[in-house]
Amino acid sequence: MIRIGIYGYGNLGRGVENAIRQNPDMTLVAVFTRRDPASLKISTPTATVASASDVEAYVGKIDVMIICGGSATDLPVQTPRLAELFPVIDSFDTHANIPAHFAAVDAAAKKGANTAMISVGWDPGMFSVNRLYASAVLPDGKDYTFWGKGVSQGHSDAIRRIEGVLDAKQYTVPVAEALDSVRRGENPDLTTRQKHTRECFVVAAEGADKARIEREIKEMPNYFADYDTTVTFISAEELARDHSGIPHGGFVIRSGRTGAELEHNHIIEYSLKLDSNPEFTSSVIVAYARAVHKLQTEGSVGCKTVFDIPPAYISPLSGEELRKTML
Amino acid sequence: MIRIGIYGYGNLGRGVENAIRQNPDMTLVAVFTRRDPASLKISTPTATVASASDVEAYVGKIDVMIICGGSATDLPVQTPRLAELFPVIDSFDTHANIPAHFAAVDAAAKKGANTAMISVGWDPGMFSVNRLYASAVLPDGKDYTFWGKGVSQGHSDAIRRIEGVLDAKQYTVPVAEALDSVRRGENPDLTTRQKHTRECFVVAAEGADKARIEREIKEMPNYFADYDTTVTFISAEELARDHSGIPHGGFVIRSGRTGAELEHNHIIEYSLKLDSNPEFTSSVIVAYARAVHKLQTEGSVGCKTVFDIPPAYISPLSGEELRKTML
Repeated sequence: MIRIGIYGYGNLGRGVENAIRQNPDMTLVAVFTRRDPASLKISTPTATVASASDVEAYVGKIDVMIICGGSATDLPVQTPRLAELFPVIDSFDTHANIPAHFAAVDAAAKKGANTAMISVGWDPGMFSVNRLYASAVLPDGKDYTFWGKGVSQGHSDAIRRIEGVLDAKQYTVPVAEALDSVRRGENPDLTTRQKHTRECFVVAAEGADKARIEREIKEMPNYFADYDTTVTFISAEELARDHSGIPHGGFVIRSGRTGAELEHNHIIEYSLKLDSNPEFTSSVIVAYARAVHKLQTEGSVGCKTVFDIPPAYISPLSGEELRKTML
Repeated sequence: MIRIGIYGYGNLGRGVENAIRQNPDMTLVAVFTRRDPASLKISTPTATVASASDVEAYVGKIDVMIICGGSATDLPVQTPRLAELFPVIDSFDTHANIPAHFAAVDAAAKKGANTAMISVGWDPGMFSVNRLYASAVLPDGKDYTFWGKGVSQGHSDAIRRIEGVLDAKQYTVPVAEALDSVRRGENPDLTTRQKHTRECFVVAAEGADKARIEREIKEMPNYFADYDTTVTFISAEELARDHSGIPHGGFVIRSGRTGAELEHNHIIEYSLKLDSNPEFTSSVIVAYARAVHKLQTEGSVGCKTVFDIPPAYISPLSGEELRKTML
């Protein structure tokens, strides 16, 4: 049994707890929280709720610590600190800061003689390995990543900060024409606007100036100004009824050529259609926690990403079983 | 530079030769043939054409031998024999015999202190890793593999053996309704007939009994009897004009559930649309030849499959470059 700890208990931590139940070779030992442990209800009766400040007492009792903090401020501090104490895994997803985070975690993990893994999930994560496989197999080609249809938490939050907005949900939607052109092997050059649209569902306060709110959304730099954005005002009831889920997904497509005259085209497409973004991310992390444990057992030390992990390491099946049933 | 040998020069060998040109860290040293070497025209001016019987003279001059024989009779003999002499890779694709082939190659590679890889291509190969990734991430789920639309060489050959048939091409076609049901997460139980249809284009000899030919095709056990099969008679000119390519492709789809009550569904789909089946297979093999070379350099010994290879090993980029550009 692989003994798991969960550090941080939001959407992702709860998803990890559920995913552990789907993997019979794993057991949840403890959930660590910065809140008062007595205030936290978890769904695994055999696991402890402990204070984050007591985490050192669990060294030797936990095989892999799954760190479920946020990428902005939590993980840059938590993952290096915990990598000195435990084999760890996180879902750090600020793409631009991955090299710095990798360096910090690598140094800490080596100091603690532990295996660590960062940036595990679907993007970064499963999308990344698919970009790598496809580009290595078709060197003369072009990559496309589309996201959605799905809820962007950051964009929803940005709308909620506008005066007069009570609540909001933003969907990122890939443009069907762009997707079709890529699938036909046309290798288009696509602008930001041509790849995705943004659909906003907004609950406005009574008497609020809806025209102003709509204008402020559509003109917001970085978030919306570069996109074709639609704003639909709905009631709080409608938002709760029709937009309470956290679906997401997307597409990684590579179009590439082979042959004596590069006369043959090939399309590799990987796509995800997810009812729950955090639960799917959790499921990927839990599978890779198995790899972290195997690497630690082998004496491997330092920081890894999904690029470094043989696929067999995330499966509970033996090499022989895998070759017989899946090759 | 990784020095490559090609053993066998049919469609696959020619595809490997073309793919090597697309990978600047590789160079083709020699093509080995059972035919008279003087009779073989290759397209790489710097490479030698050598007799298969002289292969031992190349030990130490070739880093990876890519074996391009057929799975039925060539590879079971060639791969173990050559694995004693060289790091090797093949595309053995008789799924049922993979465990036996693995054992034979593993023993030979260990005897020669070499790394060997078998069953590299797209199925087995890229489809296999996608089955593994998806099943590890979504343990409560169901896998589907669909093939096509594409040319099946074996089925085309079977038609050509019928009396009165001059030439033929057979396409395997996934059934759109079945594919759509899987994509909607309905987890259908599908019979052979419900998953694929078979389209046959046949050139009959003058005066041949077309009704008998059609009946013989449709009733052929294993090949066609379990499928909805259509037979279209065309002229030799039409066959040459419209059916000379070797396209293929397919879909690996996993539908699985997560959540406290398994209330959320997720669809992972990997698909290929290939203009040339042998050239794409060759491109996968050449990328994995890079991994074989890295493993050999590290002192790894014995037989591997795509399940054992960290994705980073098939890329020419460094870990740092990969993390910066693809994670």
